[in-house]
Amino acid sequence: MKKYMMQILQEAASKSGPLCVGLDTDPSYIPDYIVNSIASSTEAVKLYNQCIIKGVAAENLACCVKVQIAYYEAAGVEGMKVYRDTLKMARESSLITIADIKRGDIGATSQAYARAHYTGDFEADIVTLNPYMGRDAIEPFMKYNKCGKGAFVLLCTSNGGAADIEKQTLKTGESVFCLSGSIIENINKEFARKGDKCGALGAVVGATQCDAAQYLRQKYPNTLFLIPGFGAQGGDLAVIKTLLSCAGGVVNSSRAILCAWMKDNSLKNKRESKTLCLDDIAQSAIRAARAAKDTLLNL
Amino acid sequence: MKKYMMQILQEAASKSGPLCVGLDTDPSYIPDYIVNSIASSTEAVKLYNQCIIKGVAAENLACCVKVQIAYYEAAGVEGMKVYRDTLKMARESSLITIADIKRGDIGATSQAYARAHYTGDFEADIVTLNPYMGRDAIEPFMKYNKCGKGAFVLLCTSNGGAADIEKQTLKTGESVFCLSGSIIENINKEFARKGDKCGALGAVVGATQCDAAQYLRQKYPNTLFLIPGFGAQGGDLAVIKTLLSCAGGVVNSSRAILCAWMKDNSLKNKRESKTLCLDDIAQSAIRAARAAKDTLLNL
Repeated sequence: MKKYMMQILQEAASKSGPLCVGLDTDPSYIPDYIVNSIASSTEAVKLYNQCIIKGVAAENLACCVKVQIAYYEAAGVEGMKVYRDTLKMARESSLITIADIKRGDIGATSQAYARAHYTGDFEADIVTLNPYMGRDAIEPFMKYNKCGKGAFVLLCTSNGGAADIEKQTLKTGESVFCLSGSIIENINKEFARKGDKCGALGAVVGATQCDAAQYLRQKYPNTLFLIPGFGAQGGDLAVIKTLLSCAGGVVNSSRAILCAWMKDNSLKNKRESKTLCLDDIAQSAIRAARAAKDTLLNL
Repeated sequence: MKKYMMQILQEAASKSGPLCVGLDTDPSYIPDYIVNSIASSTEAVKLYNQCIIKGVAAENLACCVKVQIAYYEAAGVEGMKVYRDTLKMARESSLITIADIKRGDIGATSQAYARAHYTGDFEADIVTLNPYMGRDAIEPFMKYNKCGKGAFVLLCTSNGGAADIEKQTLKTGESVFCLSGSIIENINKEFARKGDKCGALGAVVGATQCDAAQYLRQKYPNTLFLIPGFGAQGGDLAVIKTLLSCAGGVVNSSRAILCAWMKDNSLKNKRESKTLCLDDIAQSAIRAARAAKDTLLNL
């Protein structure tokens, strides 16, 4: 019996640590003189991603990478080629890939999205999904569950705006995000198989949600969490420790890794003289990933 | 003072009628022998879209077209080229373009999405947005408001799954979708200018939401609605009439137009003998759009 992707990821996290390296690679995260020395800004992003993927895979620094599609869409068709190539490079380096797409639509459209992101050019192992439109929006992705594909559904996100809808109170006394939790739980009950160590669907819970972390971890003990907000967004380490208990999860860091060169003391001179090369900033990113891995393993 | 896009669309709807032609063009909506006679299925989709756009523009059958990006993402990089080209053809035919993307993410990512869909290869006039993550997810798009770009935010969608989160009851007695409504209203208050005939942000309200239609139309009288669910999804004409009152809106029909050839009596013989050509099915789509326009104008 083939394992569900969430279990494969859970095992990868126990083996390599819970760090997820976020490749939300905006060209502005690379010094402009490096970008200018390369054929195009999309090519620069691709080369930067390639160096990071190679370094992370070589040292086993992360259990997965998360690619935020928005930054690639913003570069048009050329950006989408780099998105495709980045996913391919990561999968070829045996890293589990999370496509951070936050899609969700009526059934027929979600079917098209599932095809788009689980097969073909943009194939990833795992996607992120938005539950606003309900269970319809999620179900078409579950058809790929037995083919080793998985999904994280937004539960309680890391941004301030989580207060506007997600954290509002229902007449039952629960928060709106519990409705997303119910969709996840119900689907997980249906897909549960003997011996599974976590549900088939995971949930996104921000590292910034101090007040909700303990509650969510206890309410959904068998759900694997994707935890954004570590690093640049200022997520709390105690919160992350809480969220990593029970079924555990993976902790994403994007900008703190991609932009590590901007604050890296060992690069001070080169940074000031504007003589950094792509390998310098990639090595800085890899050092930041190494430090992030250690921080997470020592929680 | 440049008009906001929602007003331009409102005026276009008064002039040409409220029909929005949905180009959710899955290759399976085209007979396989026609697809096989063309270089690729993506090329077939592009040519079909082109015929429909030309016909709709020539006869002034619709005020806008809506392109559902999922169907293009599903065809990978080649699909994204057709997505780009479809938007370009529609804009060159002076049709207002709605990119049905339902994006929504943390601020920095929503900024990238706004850049992706308001500028460059994938430039559209209007996008659809998902409010689950709150106001943060919407605001970056408003920066383009003064450059003549607009957005519809999901309020109460046309699918069955709307019951799972959107239509649940809050402790205030209101439905969860009213939280999305509050985000829209608050932003619209901030952006309001003397003489505006509708808010800067529009809302998506499904034609299938019989019980909510009257309530939503009265609660948000100045908000332009994007109304999916007409045609293939079985939306109710009385509901559409209600939703089109006050600030009005645009009514989308996708599959009923794109797949009109499948039930078109005048094509029975050609359909049975499998001798349809691209122009046959495009003319059938255009006849269906003409009929849909008439239906909507006679409500």
